Amino acid sequence: MSDSKTNNALPPDLARFVRGDILGMKGYVPGEQPQSGKVLKLNTNENPYGPSPKVLEAIREAANDERLRKYPDPMGNSFREAAAKVYGVKPTNILCGNGSDDILTILTRTFVPQGGIVSSPYPSYLLYETLAQLQGALFHRFSFAGNGWELPERWEGPKPNLICLANPNSPSGTQVGSLAMADFVRLVRVPVVFDEAYADFAPENAIGLVKEQHTLPAPVIVSRTLSKSYSLAGIRFGFALADETLIEEMVKVKDSYNCDAVALAAATAAIGDQAYFESIKAKIIATRQAAIPKLDRLGFSVIPSHANFLWCDHVTHDPTTLFQGLREANILVRLIHYPAWRSGLRISIGTDAEMDHLFDVMTKLV
Amino acid sequence: MSDSKTNNALPPDLARFVRGDILGMKGYVPGEQPQSGKVLKLNTNENPYGPSPKVLEAIREAANDERLRKYPDPMGNSFREAAAKVYGVKPTNILCGNGSDDILTILTRTFVPQGGIVSSPYPSYLLYETLAQLQGALFHRFSFAGNGWELPERWEGPKPNLICLANPNSPSGTQVGSLAMADFVRLVRVPVVFDEAYADFAPENAIGLVKEQHTLPAPVIVSRTLSKSYSLAGIRFGFALADETLIEEMVKVKDSYNCDAVALAAATAAIGDQAYFESIKAKIIATRQAAIPKLDRLGFSVIPSHANFLWCDHVTHDPTTLFQGLREANILVRLIHYPAWRSGLRISIGTDAEMDHLFDVMTKLV
Repeated sequence: MSDSKTNNALPPDLARFVRGDILGMKGYVPGEQPQSGKVLKLNTNENPYGPSPKVLEAIREAANDERLRKYPDPMGNSFREAAAKVYGVKPTNILCGNGSDDILTILTRTFVPQGGIVSSPYPSYLLYETLAQLQGALFHRFSFAGNGWELPERWEGPKPNLICLANPNSPSGTQVGSLAMADFVRLVRVPVVFDEAYADFAPENAIGLVKEQHTLPAPVIVSRTLSKSYSLAGIRFGFALADETLIEEMVKVKDSYNCDAVALAAATAAIGDQAYFESIKAKIIATRQAAIPKLDRLGFSVIPSHANFLWCDHVTHDPTTLFQGLREANILVRLIHYPAWRSGLRISIGTDAEMDHLFDVMTKLV
Repeated sequence: MSDSKTNNALPPDLARFVRGDILGMKGYVPGEQPQSGKVLKLNTNENPYGPSPKVLEAIREAANDERLRKYPDPMGNSFREAAAKVYGVKPTNILCGNGSDDILTILTRTFVPQGGIVSSPYPSYLLYETLAQLQGALFHRFSFAGNGWELPERWEGPKPNLICLANPNSPSGTQVGSLAMADFVRLVRVPVVFDEAYADFAPENAIGLVKEQHTLPAPVIVSRTLSKSYSLAGIRFGFALADETLIEEMVKVKDSYNCDAVALAAATAAIGDQAYFESIKAKIIATRQAAIPKLDRLGFSVIPSHANFLWCDHVTHDPTTLFQGLREANILVRLIHYPAWRSGLRISIGTDAEMDHLFDVMTKLV
C-alpha cells in the first residue's frame, strides 16, 4: 500500500461501542484520486479513452424528473437482459452491483460467517483481506505455484469459506487458464470468486464454469466491473455471474436499490455498444504490448500482463525514487510494497501519446 | 410486508456453502417499482415534484469523458462541504452513502458483532430486522410508550449494540421531540441511529444531539436521505451525521467508492439549492395537512403525520380490498400488515391534483 491511515483519537467512551474488528483494522486505502490539476493518472487502471458516446447520451436522457424522483428498478433488469445476451447466460444469472466492490462485499456476507476464513493468493488485490476483517473472519494467504503465477495443485491450508482469485491477477497482470480454474475448484471444493475486473483484456475467463456449475463441487462466481474496460470508473457499476439459485441468496444480502437509475442507464448503454468496447480494448492491448519492450530497454523487469496495467521494478533504481521522480513530473503511478515479495510500480496503460510521455520522463530518471 | 419472496430450489450441494443466517432469512421486500405504465405511484414515499433544475444541469455537466472514466472522490468532499454549511457542522461530521440503506448497513457493520443485538420500536421500518439478520445478530423489538408513539422511559429489554429509531417513524409518521431523543440516549446508553429519512417534513431533528455528542453517554448518529425531500430516489444518495471520530470508523467499513461521480454532482447541486427544496417541502406539507380531514370524512382513521405520507385504516372497509380497488384504478399505495398491531394503507403525499384524484376514487370505494 502506498499510504496508511491514521486515526483521530477516538474517545474511549465512544470507542467501547465500536466492534473490536473495526477498531483493530486500518481500512483499505484506495489509490490516490486527485480531483483537479493536470496529472497524468496511471495509478488506478482507469481507461484512457472515454466511454461509448451512447453512454453520455443515455445519462443525459436519464436526467429527467421522472427517473430521478422515483426509485430505480431494484434488480436492474435492463442491464441484466443486455448483459445476458453478451455472455450467453440468463438474466437471472446476473446480479448488478454498485461497482465490483459491492459484489465482493455481498459475496463475503453471503458465504463467510464471523470466524470463517477468506483466502487468496499472494501477492494479490489487498482488498480481500479488508473484506475478511470487516466480516470478523480470518484471512489466509496461499502462494502461487509453478514458476510464479500458477494455482497450487495441492491444498495444504485451512478450508476457507470463500477464495478470492483475481484473474488476471493484480499486481502481476498474469492469468490462469480456464482448465486450471476448473481443476482448482475441484481441488479446493469451496466457493471461489473469480474476480475478473481485468478479464476483458485477457484471453480467458470463468464464465464457462458458471454455465457448467452443475459439474463442479462448489459455487463458482464471476465478478466483473465496467470501471476499466468500459471506461466507467466514475459510475460505479459491477456485476456477478453465477448459478441463479446463488444469485437469489445474494439478492437477500444486497441493499434493495444498490444501483441508481442513471448508473443503470449508463451501464446498459455501455454493454450494449460492443463495437465501441472492442475498439478501445484493442487499442489498450496494442499499447500494452508495445510498452513491454520499451520498459525492458529502460532497464525495467516487467511481468507479461493480460490486464490494462504492467507491474515493473527496475534492475538498479529504487521504486520509491522512481515514483517520486514521476510524481514531480506530474505522472501518477501506483507504488506498492508487498512485504516478503517486492516493491514496484504498477503502471496503468494510457494512450500511446501518454505512454510516450511516460517513457520520455523515465528515460531521464534511469 | 405486502409481499413475500419465494426461493428457487437451492440445490443442497450449493446450499451447504451459504451462511445459515442468509439461508434462513427471507430478505427485505422493497415496495413495488413498476418501471413503465401509467400508475399513480403513492406507495414508496417518492416526491411528486421533480428535483431542482440545478440537479438536472449538474448531471448533464457530469456526463463527460473525464468524470465517467475516472474514479470519483472516495469521500465525496464536494457534498460534505455543501451539506456542512446547511447543517452547521464540519465536513468531517458527514459520511456520504449510496442511499441511506448504505448508511444503515455501514452502521450495523460498525457497531453490531455477530450474535449482537439490533433493537427498534414496533411498528417501524421493517428493514432494521433484515439488517440484524444479515449481520448474524438478534433483533429485539420494544413498544412505543405513552398514548402510542412515545419513547419508553424505562429500558427493560436486553442491552442492544445499536438502536434504530425512524424519526419520524414509518408507518405512523409520528415524531419524537429532541428532548425526548436526548433523554432516550441517556436512558439506554448504547449507540442510537436516528433514521431521519422524513425529518425534512417534520419540526424537529437530532442534529443538535450530534453537535452535543460530548454530553451524551453513547454514540448518536443521524441518517439522512435525498430520496424523499430532495426528490432524488433514483439517484441513491444518503448521508450520516456523527462525531468525526465515529465517521472515521465508518469510513473503514464503507466501500472505497460508494458514491458515484454523477450522484455526487447531483447531490451537491440538490443540497445547494435550499430555496427550491423549501418550496417543494412547503407544498408537500400543505397537501398533507389538507389530506387529513378529507380522509377523515371518508371514514378513515388517520394518524397525524410529520412525514410525506399518511397511515390510515378504514373504520369499516378491509385495507386489502381498498388496496385492490385503488390498484384497479391504477393507484398504487402501500398495503402493510403489521402482525399484532394493524393492517392498513400507507399513502405517500402526491400533488394536490393527484390527491384529489385519489379521493375521487376512494369516494367510490367506501
